[in-house]
Amino acid sequence: MSITVVGSVAYDAVKTPFGERERMLGGAATYFALAASFFDQVHVVGRVGDDFGDDDLSVLATRGTDVADVERVPGGKTFFWAGEYGWDLNSRETLDTQLNVFEDFRPTLSAASRDCDVLFLANIQPELQLNVLEQCRNPKFVALDSMNLWIDIARDALIDVIRRVDCVVLNDAELRQLTERPSIVGAARAVIEMGPSSVVAKLGEYGAALITAEEFFALPAFPLETVVDPTGAGDTFAGAFVGFIARQLERSEREPVLRQAMAYGTALASYSVEEFGTERVERLTAGEVDSRVEDLRRITQFEHVAVPLEIS
Amino acid sequence: MSITVVGSVAYDAVKTPFGERERMLGGAATYFALAASFFDQVHVVGRVGDDFGDDDLSVLATRGTDVADVERVPGGKTFFWAGEYGWDLNSRETLDTQLNVFEDFRPTLSAASRDCDVLFLANIQPELQLNVLEQCRNPKFVALDSMNLWIDIARDALIDVIRRVDCVVLNDAELRQLTERPSIVGAARAVIEMGPSSVVAKLGEYGAALITAEEFFALPAFPLETVVDPTGAGDTFAGAFVGFIARQLERSEREPVLRQAMAYGTALASYSVEEFGTERVERLTAGEVDSRVEDLRRITQFEHVAVPLEIS
Repeated sequence: MSITVVGSVAYDAVKTPFGERERMLGGAATYFALAASFFDQVHVVGRVGDDFGDDDLSVLATRGTDVADVERVPGGKTFFWAGEYGWDLNSRETLDTQLNVFEDFRPTLSAASRDCDVLFLANIQPELQLNVLEQCRNPKFVALDSMNLWIDIARDALIDVIRRVDCVVLNDAELRQLTERPSIVGAARAVIEMGPSSVVAKLGEYGAALITAEEFFALPAFPLETVVDPTGAGDTFAGAFVGFIARQLERSEREPVLRQAMAYGTALASYSVEEFGTERVERLTAGEVDSRVEDLRRITQFEHVAVPLEIS
Repeated sequence: MSITVVGSVAYDAVKTPFGERERMLGGAATYFALAASFFDQVHVVGRVGDDFGDDDLSVLATRGTDVADVERVPGGKTFFWAGEYGWDLNSRETLDTQLNVFEDFRPTLSAASRDCDVLFLANIQPELQLNVLEQCRNPKFVALDSMNLWIDIARDALIDVIRRVDCVVLNDAELRQLTERPSIVGAARAVIEMGPSSVVAKLGEYGAALITAEEFFALPAFPLETVVDPTGAGDTFAGAFVGFIARQLERSEREPVLRQAMAYGTALASYSVEEFGTERVERLTAGEVDSRVEDLRRITQFEHVAVPLEIS
């Protein structure tokens, strides 16, 4: 199996209550690849400027990720985002967005990227997501992320892509906005009616929920006393979630695989937010991932022994 | 075992996107008692006006709850609250609060109420919580709820009571406000340093988390496509949580009991919000409670079979 991801590779300036970084490696495809590469061969499709450092390209290539489809534009500047988080990290203000070379990003995928078994369409404009999807030969599983901007200005195009993917990964506010349904379950069901077989609702510090036509599953975020930088947590989650599915795709039991994939996504995301940017996940080991999934299982299980109720 | 609860018995006017009630039975002690009465003998300590109907007193007495300590004040009016919920039910505007007979509520507990094994101090002013706690002879387990108002205007008194209880039940915003710690885990640990052995963080539509000195446990809310009225969900949760603990208090295993108690709290709260006010829980059966706890177990479990990671 192999995984192709298309999305931003960027530099971020981030300030949180615990410190700041003036220029760190970021972007949805970067976070996704660093997590997914634990599970399978990853191909990154992206675009950077000639300000993009070889050391950062090496980080992107961690655990064997193929970066041949990361185009470096001579004279161009890499996508840049600057943001600042509030006291409890639940609010975020965007201070600057410079699309730069990402503005006219129209990728032509290499044979290796087109031959992927699993495709992740990170948050980019829906027309571009569709274009990449159509270039891929025969992906067995396609997942998609998006954002409020595209729901606002490119709703029809977004729904066109959603109809053609297996799994939609959005946060709860985006699910509500997209479907105009007030409850997360109702919103996810409305998305499933569009075509996908599963929806992952990212709930930030509260964790994530998985909704399919038959099932609901929810996991809390891994409890951390200190979150240093939430940037990239969602894409890191998606990388491990999709990565795990890619690895287990041959197996027959779909539902348990999705649940375990949620656990790996939660575990990887929790490591990601412990330090700035990609710093923690860059040096993460497989043993640490596995140990956190086991911890997560331990803190979510309970026995149900039915007790006689009603005293009168 | 027996449970005493002190708190409001009220009339509420509630408007949600799904309808409205101009005057329905409400109040923290009411919701608590209706849930806790599934598990053990409950004594309600409260105060109402002579506008309080006998039919509503009968509802309060559901499943054998003792209402002898609900004082009816001649010529007085029952506590009244009016509120309206927003589109996604996560925002709530208080339109009217009339304390009425609740304003100079200084209860003297009957022997039966004082002899309780378990005490729940619902959200009332901290000095009153302390007064009731001191009237109780030898409760084995005491839990407390509060709100932002008391953290604002009676912080020291609230901390005095917190020091003397076993369990604090607050929502995440209240925990952050009380402790000035940004993370839920950090905030809960700060409360545990004050004295209690456990903290329940109510997370609204996202569920609830349990934090003790050694353990963390989290449960999502039960997934509902439609929530009709969230009023009283937190107190209903507390009633089942505390009720289950009361019932199991003789047993030795503290931690599994707390986890199961969280599950019963979640189950009861999910029924409560399916209809307005106490309507659903009034006619709820023990079999329905048990069946939802089992459903909740099913939607939160996953197998963890360690897989070899890192492909390169």
